[in-house]
Amino acid sequence: MAGNSSGTVFTVTTFGESHGPGLGCIVDGCPAGLSLDIDDISRELSRRRPGGGGPSTTRSEADTPEILSGVFQGKTLGTPIAILVRNNDQRSGDYDELKDIYRPGHADWAWEAKYGFRDHRGGGRSSARETLGRVAAGAIAKVFLRDQGIVIRGWTSSAAGINAPAFESPGFDFEEVEKNPLRFPNRELSKLVLKKTEQLRIEGDSAGGTVSCRVTGLKPGLGEPVFGKLDARLAAAMLSLGAAKGIAFGAGFDAARQQGSVSNDRPIPPTPGRGSRPLLPPGVPDLEYAANNAGGVLGGISTGMPLEFTVTFKPVPSISKKQETLDRQGNIRELVIRGRHDVCVCPRAVPAVEAMTALTLADLLLLSRLDRG
Amino acid sequence: MAGNSSGTVFTVTTFGESHGPGLGCIVDGCPAGLSLDIDDISRELSRRRPGGGGPSTTRSEADTPEILSGVFQGKTLGTPIAILVRNNDQRSGDYDELKDIYRPGHADWAWEAKYGFRDHRGGGRSSARETLGRVAAGAIAKVFLRDQGIVIRGWTSSAAGINAPAFESPGFDFEEVEKNPLRFPNRELSKLVLKKTEQLRIEGDSAGGTVSCRVTGLKPGLGEPVFGKLDARLAAAMLSLGAAKGIAFGAGFDAARQQGSVSNDRPIPPTPGRGSRPLLPPGVPDLEYAANNAGGVLGGISTGMPLEFTVTFKPVPSISKKQETLDRQGNIRELVIRGRHDVCVCPRAVPAVEAMTALTLADLLLLSRLDRG
Amino acid sequence: MAGNSSGTVFTVTTFGESHGPGLGCIVDGCPAGLSLDIDDISRELSRRRPGGGGPSTTRSEADTPEILSGVFQGKTLGTPIAILVRNNDQRSGDYDELKDIYRPGHADWAWEAKYGFRDHRGGGRSSARETLGRVAAGAIAKVFLRDQGIVIRGWTSSAAGINAPAFESPGFDFEEVEKNPLRFPNRELSKLVLKKTEQLRIEGDSAGGTVSCRVTGLKPGLGEPVFGKLDARLAAAMLSLGAAKGIAFGAGFDAARQQGSVSNDRPIPPTPGRGSRPLLPPGVPDLEYAANNAGGVLGGISTGMPLEFTVTFKPVPSISKKQETLDRQGNIRELVIRGRHDVCVCPRAVPAVEAMTALTLADLLLLSRLDRG
Amino acid sequence: MAGNSSGTVFTVTTFGESHGPGLGCIVDGCPAGLSLDIDDISRELSRRRPGGGGPSTTRSEADTPEILSGVFQGKTLGTPIAILVRNNDQRSGDYDELKDIYRPGHADWAWEAKYGFRDHRGGGRSSARETLGRVAAGAIAKVFLRDQGIVIRGWTSSAAGINAPAFESPGFDFEEVEKNPLRFPNRELSKLVLKKTEQLRIEGDSAGGTVSCRVTGLKPGLGEPVFGKLDARLAAAMLSLGAAKGIAFGAGFDAARQQGSVSNDRPIPPTPGRGSRPLLPPGVPDLEYAANNAGGVLGGISTGMPLEFTVTFKPVPSISKKQETLDRQGNIRELVIRGRHDVCVCPRAVPAVEAMTALTLADLLLLSRLDRG
Repeated sequence: MAGNSSGTVFTVTTFGESHGPGLGCIVDGCPAGLSLDIDDISRELSRRRPGGGGPSTTRSEADTPEILSGVFQGKTLGTPIAILVRNNDQRSGDYDELKDIYRPGHADWAWEAKYGFRDHRGGGRSSARETLGRVAAGAIAKVFLRDQGIVIRGWTSSAAGINAPAFESPGFDFEEVEKNPLRFPNRELSKLVLKKTEQLRIEGDSAGGTVSCRVTGLKPGLGEPVFGKLDARLAAAMLSLGAAKGIAFGAGFDAARQQGSVSNDRPIPPTPGRGSRPLLPPGVPDLEYAANNAGGVLGGISTGMPLEFTVTFKPVPSISKKQETLDRQGNIRELVIRGRHDVCVCPRAVPAVEAMTALTLADLLLLSRLDRG
Repeated sequence: MAGNSSGTVFTVTTFGESHGPGLGCIVDGCPAGLSLDIDDISRELSRRRPGGGGPSTTRSEADTPEILSGVFQGKTLGTPIAILVRNNDQRSGDYDELKDIYRPGHADWAWEAKYGFRDHRGGGRSSARETLGRVAAGAIAKVFLRDQGIVIRGWTSSAAGINAPAFESPGFDFEEVEKNPLRFPNRELSKLVLKKTEQLRIEGDSAGGTVSCRVTGLKPGLGEPVFGKLDARLAAAMLSLGAAKGIAFGAGFDAARQQGSVSNDRPIPPTPGRGSRPLLPPGVPDLEYAANNAGGVLGGISTGMPLEFTVTFKPVPSISKKQETLDRQGNIRELVIRGRHDVCVCPRAVPAVEAMTALTLADLLLLSRLDRG
Repeated sequence: MAGNSSGTVFTVTTFGESHGPGLGCIVDGCPAGLSLDIDDISRELSRRRPGGGGPSTTRSEADTPEILSGVFQGKTLGTPIAILVRNNDQRSGDYDELKDIYRPGHADWAWEAKYGFRDHRGGGRSSARETLGRVAAGAIAKVFLRDQGIVIRGWTSSAAGINAPAFESPGFDFEEVEKNPLRFPNRELSKLVLKKTEQLRIEGDSAGGTVSCRVTGLKPGLGEPVFGKLDARLAAAMLSLGAAKGIAFGAGFDAARQQGSVSNDRPIPPTPGRGSRPLLPPGVPDLEYAANNAGGVLGGISTGMPLEFTVTFKPVPSISKKQETLDRQGNIRELVIRGRHDVCVCPRAVPAVEAMTALTLADLLLLSRLDRG
Repeated sequence: MAGNSSGTVFTVTTFGESHGPGLGCIVDGCPAGLSLDIDDISRELSRRRPGGGGPSTTRSEADTPEILSGVFQGKTLGTPIAILVRNNDQRSGDYDELKDIYRPGHADWAWEAKYGFRDHRGGGRSSARETLGRVAAGAIAKVFLRDQGIVIRGWTSSAAGINAPAFESPGFDFEEVEKNPLRFPNRELSKLVLKKTEQLRIEGDSAGGTVSCRVTGLKPGLGEPVFGKLDARLAAAMLSLGAAKGIAFGAGFDAARQQGSVSNDRPIPPTPGRGSRPLLPPGVPDLEYAANNAGGVLGGISTGMPLEFTVTFKPVPSISKKQETLDRQGNIRELVIRGRHDVCVCPRAVPAVEAMTALTLADLLLLSRLDRG
């Protein structure tokens, strides 16, 4: 399939430019009979919508989704679910002066080297607004996963050089995340970050950060050897997000410095009284692991432990500080980017990270129905 | 496609278990008329073969490839190229006692949770030996890329907690890499690493590390938005390697701490006297970037700058140190793994990283022929 | 990919139910820089729209397409082209009594056996209206092909038991086709057919027929061995149309009765003064074939001769004649189908056959760019 | 995927040239735990092997398959199953004089127009021997289907202009098929056909024919709307066979002449005492159809009635009668094809038709596990 589709059996295709008539997606392969409500989708879209304060852009789109197909009497039909979100607040004029200029840190020139021309308005399809179709699709995947007890939660784990407390360490507060303009799991530290990002906004600069994600309720056995490994699929999903520059699972980049005797997660008997597990094949005992350095995935297959990974995002490249660059005639030009831009992509990246996780897991979960005769 | 295939138009499917009759691959979609020699494949296989000394396993397979189809009179036919490597030195008996035991840090139990049973001999398909089919396929992709001036070079950039000098920094020696048992780009430092890994071998332990990769000669415009981005595709390719736990491009995980004014690579006029560039579309000027924090990819599309990324590998999980684990009956067991195992996966991972890079780039390079009407 | 997508590199995904908010498609992989106008799409949609008189339904939809993405300043961007057509004239009430009844000759029960429930209004996604997304997508493919001199023409070659004259035989009139309510290539004979179908409409019955298609301007070398053969791909495309029951290429079903010495098309020197041919590889001479029993395809690869095939369509299953069937409770019921239905699907199937042909050829034409190093 | 792979989740990739080292396949996506024996594969290969007398080639290959991977202790592992069959009886010298000549009715020139050159020995990859990999793969699919009560049976339904009795009509003898050199379901008539084909062999000519196929035990609900319909998938599978020129389902090409009131298969209560049916979704009653004009598929979805279709094959193009053609220099040449060739492809096409049917159904059967939440 061409580059705007993803998935093997639970698939998504997205479309839309930042300043065109609209954006959206088609989800094909969602099982029939799933209860699906427009609110399931609106809720996720509003999580990615700017305007939450903090370091986000002030562009204010209503981002109202319309389900065009695939749902009848509140249930999925098994047919493609098409969702459309119209663009409203398009101040395309803001971009007129960028028509012939290649913005530093952006794909402008690479895009032209590829296609010969581009929609310069707001980055066209390479805009962060492109994630809208993904988040809408991910909302459907989330409903499918939720019905099976799978919960996906993301948060900003560092921003502007300030780290959040590690998961479950002192100061880590999961309840805070969705109330926090940064989706930061510690209110006090987030104030420091906001002070820093506000300073950067004034200076016309921007900040990078990381988003962490944790999935619970995942049964063991998900992931397809060799090229369709759970972590390989998630890595592709995350690096397909604009501004993402890296990903690491479990102990992650620290794993490179560990020794095997430390990094090896060893099987132990299941915690007594722990909740029920998905049915294991006959003859395979239930178990847990004493640690989770692997981040829930061994040999590309889920272990039943929580899935844990962190994605690195570079600073938003659209800054209002004066920059030197080239124009289409090859002349050196000074550039000051106007328009409304995030200072740090992390808080709005959280729902996109969750959406891509949900889409990947829904696909692998369906595929796992095919594992055994 | 099922999980053992990769690629859209230049595709590879691999097969084989560590202790079955053989391993190999089918490359489908390789253009016709390419000069291909069995030595092109043997050379790469010998680079991944153990026995180079250093921290690698002493299993000694000849790993002689046979081309079963797709090549006629020294040229590719445009038909599938099947390659077979037979297993010879199979001491399967070494694995008998592992039949009912779940090794820590391995996929044994997850595999059984998925498929109901597994080939326990040497890890079956989840063995590191599985990369053999990839390296054979990658050798073909390398020939295709080489003809277009694209060069892929990988090296061990850290091992057992010791970092190699950064690329082009003092002490970085590209010539050393292929002579070095660790594929380390600094001879003196590599002696320290070898001392450390030898110590670990004696202790029955193992080490992690990182492999870096650099690609030159790549034209701008490679990569498919949205889900088929160059970095997304490479991330999937790398995380599909056993023991890989993370990847970062360019400034990578450091990007999270940068500010936009620093991380933005800005376009500059091309260096005078620089070699020729692939044809750009009419009206698009040639340019370079003043820095390469992006690692050669912006918005998922190659910029024409060198492609640069680093992959993290966890320590080899097969250690001979005594470990506690569970068996198939759910009993706690003490385990001492015998057999021949790498202490650190990095030197042998280098050709696998290069192979996966070559396969990914060959696919995207072919796809780029379709970009413009 | 899931079942609502087609194509390898020039891909289409369709969506929409007959009585939902709308139908449409996403075309992904269309090269950038193609001139595309909304009229290119409207024109094809109006060809498939009912209301042309003759044996077609009297449902009168405006079928106005909207391009939601992928086109900027009249040119394709290389990004997904999404097209939406809203449903307007939905007399869903007509279908209320069909809610629990399985119509003979329809997929109603099979659909429920598959998905557990269905959108009963107008057949939901299994409505003939589903071709709307295909025809919109095919219109884009047609523009791409037209720019390369490829012309696709379909016609009703038989209907209600009356055969049209064979192509280029006396009485065959290509100019008549698009003026004719049946898309029949002979005005006098079409009057007979119309009399027959009008009689059937009065009787509450329906008729089958065949649609033939001819493609000129196709270069040799299209089609992918083994499973992606030109004729295999076209066969799938045609049988994916509702009511299609068979396909044959060239001499077709007659080929079974021929002898090799007759059916073999033999190479001959190209006709002097014939128009130019697409560039052949070095060392490969230009040629033609003395006959075209093969219908333009040998070994699954286009020969450069006109591509010729015929598709069989069964009679429209929605008839107003009284029929006996079962309802959801398993009771025997008498059924008289109301609503507006075609008597013979052929005239409106012509643009759908052409659209599917165009989509298939656009994909294979792009793929042929990858054949040689 | 490239052209030598087929299937979405139960996939096959084939490789091999007629006179190269060997041919074979990789089946990926076969569920784990299936009992699979080398005899299951050998049996099918011997059915397609020449030498059964009658109108088949006298090339005598042992066609001994070797399973290279994916099976352990007699059971499928869930990993790719690679099968290799070596070529032994390669009289490549027979083909030397064909090196620069384009055989009438063959893909020789089209292949060169595509790839620039070809393996001329025995047709290379476009040889009928290519089906070997398919038949091996199909044997695995057959085992999977057999375990679920699905039976696929093909036969020669016409050859050299002589029709076999229709299925279940007087004279139709299913028991005869596998004993008969023509796989003809009537011994007396087959003698007439053999007399005819023997005459054609002496004259240096060849004959076309048809192969019919019938599948019982198929549950309702198989097939994916819109492009992945059961009949669309089978049409692609059949037309991907060399020499196939057409396919029709159920009433087939006759359907074009029927009226809806006749062609509509109407639901009726299930025959009392009939065997059990696969589980239907809650609320969906069991039923049958009063007739099977649809050939077991409505709206692209299986109805639970026997699947019935017929494939047309053109005469074998390799005839020893003198033919006129062109060579690579564009000169007119006289050609007499030597070597060992079938006179009529049908008897050996039967196992290939069955294999492609099995592969298609296995894929759709697995996909049907994903239909409902």
